[in-house]
Amino acid sequence: MIRSIIATGADIRSMDTNDDGSRTLTIACAGLAQQDSVRAAIGTSPGARAQSLIDATFDLHRGGKIGVAPRVAVRNADELAMAYTPGVGRVSAAIAVDESLSWTYTGRSNSVAVLSDGSAVLGLGDIGPAAAMPVMEGKAVLFKQFAGIDAYPLCVDTSSVDEIVAVAKAIAPSFGGINLEDIAAPMCFEVEERLQAELDIPVFHDDQHGTAIVVLAALQNSAKVVGKSLEDMTVVIVGTGAAGLACGKLLHLVGVGDLIGVDREGILHESVLDAGSSCAKWWFARHGNRDRRTGGTADALKGADAVVGLSGPGIIEASWLEHMADDAIVCAMANPVPEVMPELVPANVAIMATGRSDYPNQINNVLAFPGVFRGMLDVRATRCTDGMKLAAAAALAAMVPAPSATRILPGAFEPGVAETVAAAVAEAAVREGCTRA
Amino acid sequence: MIRSIIATGADIRSMDTNDDGSRTLTIACAGLAQQDSVRAAIGTSPGARAQSLIDATFDLHRGGKIGVAPRVAVRNADELAMAYTPGVGRVSAAIAVDESLSWTYTGRSNSVAVLSDGSAVLGLGDIGPAAAMPVMEGKAVLFKQFAGIDAYPLCVDTSSVDEIVAVAKAIAPSFGGINLEDIAAPMCFEVEERLQAELDIPVFHDDQHGTAIVVLAALQNSAKVVGKSLEDMTVVIVGTGAAGLACGKLLHLVGVGDLIGVDREGILHESVLDAGSSCAKWWFARHGNRDRRTGGTADALKGADAVVGLSGPGIIEASWLEHMADDAIVCAMANPVPEVMPELVPANVAIMATGRSDYPNQINNVLAFPGVFRGMLDVRATRCTDGMKLAAAAALAAMVPAPSATRILPGAFEPGVAETVAAAVAEAAVREGCTRA
Repeated sequence: MIRSIIATGADIRSMDTNDDGSRTLTIACAGLAQQDSVRAAIGTSPGARAQSLIDATFDLHRGGKIGVAPRVAVRNADELAMAYTPGVGRVSAAIAVDESLSWTYTGRSNSVAVLSDGSAVLGLGDIGPAAAMPVMEGKAVLFKQFAGIDAYPLCVDTSSVDEIVAVAKAIAPSFGGINLEDIAAPMCFEVEERLQAELDIPVFHDDQHGTAIVVLAALQNSAKVVGKSLEDMTVVIVGTGAAGLACGKLLHLVGVGDLIGVDREGILHESVLDAGSSCAKWWFARHGNRDRRTGGTADALKGADAVVGLSGPGIIEASWLEHMADDAIVCAMANPVPEVMPELVPANVAIMATGRSDYPNQINNVLAFPGVFRGMLDVRATRCTDGMKLAAAAALAAMVPAPSATRILPGAFEPGVAETVAAAVAEAAVREGCTRA
Repeated sequence: MIRSIIATGADIRSMDTNDDGSRTLTIACAGLAQQDSVRAAIGTSPGARAQSLIDATFDLHRGGKIGVAPRVAVRNADELAMAYTPGVGRVSAAIAVDESLSWTYTGRSNSVAVLSDGSAVLGLGDIGPAAAMPVMEGKAVLFKQFAGIDAYPLCVDTSSVDEIVAVAKAIAPSFGGINLEDIAAPMCFEVEERLQAELDIPVFHDDQHGTAIVVLAALQNSAKVVGKSLEDMTVVIVGTGAAGLACGKLLHLVGVGDLIGVDREGILHESVLDAGSSCAKWWFARHGNRDRRTGGTADALKGADAVVGLSGPGIIEASWLEHMADDAIVCAMANPVPEVMPELVPANVAIMATGRSDYPNQINNVLAFPGVFRGMLDVRATRCTDGMKLAAAAALAAMVPAPSATRILPGAFEPGVAETVAAAVAEAAVREGCTRA
């Protein structure tokens, strides 16, 4: 049996002999598939049985991943009288007279709401607010760890744009910014647009703009590596959901040569759209595809310089990539299984990036959102502008002064990423006059 | 000058001689009034000037009083893959299938939203959400310190019952309970009633029920001290806002002899009410005042055994108390200035309690709400019932086995208060069948 367990690749951590002469093995599995193989190996061994199962990921989540920590002590009546009544009354009264003091005397200058309705969570779809909570708690952990920001996860049970907008507007006085997360397209577009128009704190839908910032930085450095200019490149975007549209818009802003959007129905082109088609589809039809191509993903890829996949696992066949231009750039970001596996890409692909940490060139939002919000909070920004997003992308790209085919971005855990992005965002905010005193 | 500063009672902490022979004094003032006296003393001293002013309370509030603390580390790609994608996806997927798992694998089983619209903050009135934030942050500090609960302050910009109810319902999946705070009457009654009907987590308006629980415990022990029974006592409640009504209802539940509600217009009696009168007023008219008294506070107090003041500073004249019964009980809880100052009460008052920490018998909500929520969270309660409130009051009263005129309640910082209240509340929840598996 031990040999067959070893054959699964699982790690036998200990082997103890019990009082009755039987043995207890502790086996660490690297994932669910390996766990199944180990179970199978145990199942075929007479006398052996799986005794208990510990899932490290579930264990880690027990009781949640964040807590609230007081920054002041209340150990006696004196301290209570300062942190709570009657002392706190003087602070509240001062803010009532001059609301801008809330940025000094409450936590809002360092706090962000991570707001989700759970309608488009990771690859899981519309799983609802309670099930989305572990993701938002994880995001809060990243906000704190990478940028020292106090992020408050709020998973809300809402069923319309109006409802989620109403909640976000209501809670705004408690926060310095709102990070929208995992809200389904096309609802996310209207939610964000309305909130940006109606609130005086920055609103940032990370699935859109976090992704777009990192993709832009990746493409800027990739272009450098292959000696092309973004202005001359044709970029195909596969998947025109929240992230796809945001990537398209940011690439359009920096003057990319041509953009071709592709979704399930094929290349987006006015001839295949009608009044019922989403704004995202119409945007691509109107802002790219200069040669008015039609057809499927394979047709879109012909001669293209880069493809950005923001769709689903295995959507792109490796053979299609052979017809891309020389020194093609492939960003296949479906997670955990990309549109095309890096092992399969043909020789004309010069740069291959995914959303995974176990291949080179990980395109990870954590490179962007902590620094973007850190920068906005540092200047008490009133909004999040395109200029701030472009500044974030440029700063991120500049962190790799000499990019190569296997290093187009800094690593997620490289020191200084959030600080560098934050400084660029804050500078852009000052330049654009959207800070508060 | 130094003599005149000493005369103010302020504390001269240091006296340093500067290079030019002048002296710098550091003086600690106990409050704003003392500070004014010190300034006056300085003003009358030739050559002296106030150089700088440090306000310890404002200093304490700088940057806010709470933060978010990760309970897990994300130091490398492995840990990131467990706490965030892809690992977190398995946890979310599990909750999507069985929502009750959110109580195990997210923070909701230890978390409470502290929700306020800032419409009735302390003695300050309707100061709005941004100005209410320091109070809610203070509350969050107390929740953590006294009961280990993660409380998330949410000050919301809403302007109707419907709006605040919608926000509370939307955020409910993120929390194990909702503590409503500083919401004006009569709006608070409808908000709480609707939320209790529509949500399956406990909703508790602390201004009402926290106060009522501690007042009931105080009166139970006071009755013991003076050798009376609550069933035989006439209790006057001055002020029929949120706290007044809740106290009345809880006292009615335990069968107090008679209840007389008094507000600005005098004793509440059907003859002085009309269809436009608030529910709170009608409740008092219908549930007490058996002798159908009319008149003002002084009339209400004649022969009464106890008075509970939940109104404003100096509302009760000390001479009126002379006409109360022998061994009268006075709870004057307006804060910081009570309805009547303890120094002024006549000899027939056997027990005097206030909301202040600098007199004996402080009636402080912090004796109730941390333990009440701790108990409810411990059993994952689905609602907060009257039985749970009564159990909390009884447990609190029982913490002082031999009450005396100057000790009717445990002190706010006595160890074990929250634990004792929590155990009683949890037991009541189990008994009443409002827990979840």
